[in-house]
Amino acid sequence: MSPDASPQNLPHVVIIGGGFGGIAAARAFRNQPVRLTLIDRRNHHLFQPLLYQVATAALNPSDIASPIRRILRRQKNASVILGEAVSIDRDRKIVHLADAEVAYDYLIVATGATHSYFGHDEWSEAAPALKTLEDAVEIRRRVLVAYEAAEREVDDGEVRGWLTFVIVGAGPTGVEMAGALAEISRRVLERDFRKIDPGRARIILIEAGPRVLPAMSPHSSERALAQLQHLGVEVILNSAVSHIDDRAVVHALGRIETRTAIWAAGVAASPLGKTLGVETDRAGRVLVNQDLSVPQADGVFVIGDLASIKSDGKPVPGLSPAAIQEGRHAARNIVHLIRGEATEPFRYWDKGTLATIGRAAAVADIGRMRISGLIAWLMWLFVHIFFLIGFRNRFLVISEWAWMYLRNDRGARLITGDVEPLLERGKRLEDRNRMLSP
Amino acid sequence: MSPDASPQNLPHVVIIGGGFGGIAAARAFRNQPVRLTLIDRRNHHLFQPLLYQVATAALNPSDIASPIRRILRRQKNASVILGEAVSIDRDRKIVHLADAEVAYDYLIVATGATHSYFGHDEWSEAAPALKTLEDAVEIRRRVLVAYEAAEREVDDGEVRGWLTFVIVGAGPTGVEMAGALAEISRRVLERDFRKIDPGRARIILIEAGPRVLPAMSPHSSERALAQLQHLGVEVILNSAVSHIDDRAVVHALGRIETRTAIWAAGVAASPLGKTLGVETDRAGRVLVNQDLSVPQADGVFVIGDLASIKSDGKPVPGLSPAAIQEGRHAARNIVHLIRGEATEPFRYWDKGTLATIGRAAAVADIGRMRISGLIAWLMWLFVHIFFLIGFRNRFLVISEWAWMYLRNDRGARLITGDVEPLLERGKRLEDRNRMLSP
Repeated sequence: MSPDASPQNLPHVVIIGGGFGGIAAARAFRNQPVRLTLIDRRNHHLFQPLLYQVATAALNPSDIASPIRRILRRQKNASVILGEAVSIDRDRKIVHLADAEVAYDYLIVATGATHSYFGHDEWSEAAPALKTLEDAVEIRRRVLVAYEAAEREVDDGEVRGWLTFVIVGAGPTGVEMAGALAEISRRVLERDFRKIDPGRARIILIEAGPRVLPAMSPHSSERALAQLQHLGVEVILNSAVSHIDDRAVVHALGRIETRTAIWAAGVAASPLGKTLGVETDRAGRVLVNQDLSVPQADGVFVIGDLASIKSDGKPVPGLSPAAIQEGRHAARNIVHLIRGEATEPFRYWDKGTLATIGRAAAVADIGRMRISGLIAWLMWLFVHIFFLIGFRNRFLVISEWAWMYLRNDRGARLITGDVEPLLERGKRLEDRNRMLSP
Repeated sequence: MSPDASPQNLPHVVIIGGGFGGIAAARAFRNQPVRLTLIDRRNHHLFQPLLYQVATAALNPSDIASPIRRILRRQKNASVILGEAVSIDRDRKIVHLADAEVAYDYLIVATGATHSYFGHDEWSEAAPALKTLEDAVEIRRRVLVAYEAAEREVDDGEVRGWLTFVIVGAGPTGVEMAGALAEISRRVLERDFRKIDPGRARIILIEAGPRVLPAMSPHSSERALAQLQHLGVEVILNSAVSHIDDRAVVHALGRIETRTAIWAAGVAASPLGKTLGVETDRAGRVLVNQDLSVPQADGVFVIGDLASIKSDGKPVPGLSPAAIQEGRHAARNIVHLIRGEATEPFRYWDKGTLATIGRAAAVADIGRMRISGLIAWLMWLFVHIFFLIGFRNRFLVISEWAWMYLRNDRGARLITGDVEPLLERGKRLEDRNRMLSP
C-alpha cells in the first residue's frame, strides 16, 4: 500500500447536519476514497414531513427518527460526531464546535432552516413552532392538556378558550396540523370526556396570504380549503397576525380567545450560514454557485434549506426532495474536485408536491396534473412510507396508521412533564380554590 | 326516578392515583351506584414493570402508557381529573389540589411510592432514579450520550469514565437495568462506533446487602447473579454507597470513576399519606386497618405502596399484584359500607415473583417452585404482555420485542433535548477546544 492510500491521507470531507440533504450526501460518498465525518447536534435523522403526526399524537417520536449512527453503520469510511457546530472558519478550514474543532478538506453545510417569528420572538412562548421532536412533544402536550383543562374548568368562557386552537400559517405544516387537530376532536376524543364535548372544539387556521398551501397550484389550494372546511376547520385568509399571548391571537380581522396557538408561519435559515462570512439572501440563505459551492470559500458547499439557488430560472424550493438531490450533487462535485475534474451545475428535478389534510383527504400537483381526495391521499401514504428510513420505522408507522385510521384512535396520547404549570398558564388568581363537582 | 337515584345524589367516591391499585379500584366500581372521580397528575396509567425498557431504549414511552381517560372511557359513572392532590382534609372530607378542591364521601388513596436517596437528595442530579416516564427518558438520554461522548473523547481516562455505568441497588429494577445495559453494549451498539468498542463498557451493579434480588428466594438470587455475570455485569455485594457525584461513585469497598450512575436503591411512600395526619411507618406508609380503611379517617382507604398492612402475619409486598388486589378489595368494602354492611379483612394472594435479567434469562419464585433461565423468561414475557393494558400496546410491545430479540437492535435509541449540557457535565476547562481527528 502506498502512503497516499492509507486512510489518514485520504481527503477529509465534513458534513454538518444529518437531515435529508446531509444523509443523502454522506451516502453518496459510500465507496469513494474519502474520510467522512458527519456532525449533528442530535443523534437522530428526523423524517420531518411526519413531525406534525407526533405533535398530534398519531406517531411516537422514535417512529420518525433513526439514529444517524445506525443509518451509516455499514459505511466504514464514515464517522459520526454528536455536537453543535457554532461557526465555520473558511480560511483555516475548520468547523468550531462548542468544545472542540474539526478540520476539513471539503465541507458540506446542510443545517437547514429554523422557524422565524418575523421579529416577534416574544410570541414563541405562547405559540410554539414545529421544527424539532421536542417542539412536537411540547405541542402534543399543550393540545392534550387543553382538553383536560377544559374538562376541569367551571367557567364557560374559560372552557371556550381551552377548546379553541389557532394555527398561524397555512403552508403544508399548518394545513396538516389543522386537519389532524380537527380529526382528534371530532373522531378520537369523542367519548373520553364527561363534561365537555370535544367535537365542539374550534380549530382555526389563519393565513396572511390569499390562499392555503400558497406554494401549490391555485386548484389544489381550493381543494385543500374545501377539505379543511369539510373537516370543520375555520380558515381565515388575508389576515396577518399582529399579537399573540397566553390568552388570545389578534389578527387584522379580529381577536380570537385561545389558550393554544401554534406557529406554522415563517422559516429562517440556520445561523451557521452567516458565520461563513459570504453573501446571504434576506432569509439568511447562502447564495451558492450553480455547482452548489460557495463563492470565496475553498472546498465549501451549501445544500438544502440553507442554500439559495435557481434551477431553470426558478428558485429551488425548500423541500426534502430538493435537499436530497442537492446532497447527492454536492457529493458528486466533491469527488470531481478530488479527481481534478470540473464540477457540474445543479438542476432540480421537480417530482411534484403533496400535502395531506386528513384521512382520505390530500392534494397533489404532479407536473400539470392536479389530484385531490382519496387518490392523492393514497399517493401521500405511499410516498411517505417509502421514504421513511429503516424497515423497522416503516413497519411501525404502517401499524400505527392502520390502527389510527381503522379505529379512530391515536396511540401516542401521552402528556409528559409537569402539567400544573400548563394548567396554571395565564390563569387568574381569583380562579383558584374553586370546588370541582364531578 | 326517585330523587335518591339521580346521579347527583349517589355517593361520591374519589380515587387519587391512576396506578395499578387506583385503576383496579375504579374498574371494580363499574356497575355500582356511585359517582366516581379519579384524580391523577398524569394523564396516563404507566405499566411500571417495563419502565426500565424505556430507560434502555427498547420501548417507547407510549408503549407502556395508556391514557387513563381511555381506560375508563366506557365506564359512564367515572370522571377523570388531571391534577395533583397536595393534601387531604379528613375532617371536612376534601382533597386539595393545587388550584381546586374535590369533596368526597369515600376516598381511596393510591399514590404509591417515590424514590428515596436516604437523606442524600444531593445525589439525585448525578444518579437519577427510575420512577416516571420522564426519569426513563432522562436515563436513556444519559446512557446514549455517554457512548457519543466516549466516541468524541481523546483522553483514555475520560473514555473509561464515559464507558462505565454504575447502578446502585440490586432489587428488580437495578438487576433489569444492569442486564439491559450489558445487552446494549455487547449486542446492539457493537458496530455503530468507529473509535470506541462499546463491548468494552463496564456495567457495575452495587448492592449494600449480601445478595441480588433480596426479596426473592436465595436460590433465585444465586441464579440471577450467575446470569448477570454471564452477561458481563460486575456485581459488588455487601458494599453501601457513601458518595455520588458527576465523576464517581464511592462505596465501602472502593471508588468507581463513572459519568453515568443510576439510582435503584430506595423507595419512600408518597408524601400525601402524611397529610392525612394519621400514623405512618418509618417509610411514610399509612398503617391501615385489616379492611384497608384508615383509623380515625371516616370513609378513607389507603392501598398499594402507600399502605402498610400484614396478611397471614407477613407484610404485604410493594408489588403490582398486591396493589391490584387491594384496589379491588377497597372498592368492595366501600360498596359494603354504602349498603350498610360490614367490611371484610384483606388477604393477599401471593401468585409468585418474577424478575428478568436479559434475553432468555430470568428467575421466578412461584410457591415453592424455583425456576430460572429460558422457561422463567418466557413466563416473564407472557405475564408482562398479558397484563399490559390495551390491545394496541400489547401488539406494539410484541412487535418491538420481536424486532429487538431477533435483530439485536433497539428501536427507541433517541436522544431528545439539548446534548451540550450533558457532554459538558463535569468537563474540566482545559479539555475544551481540543481538535477532534476522525
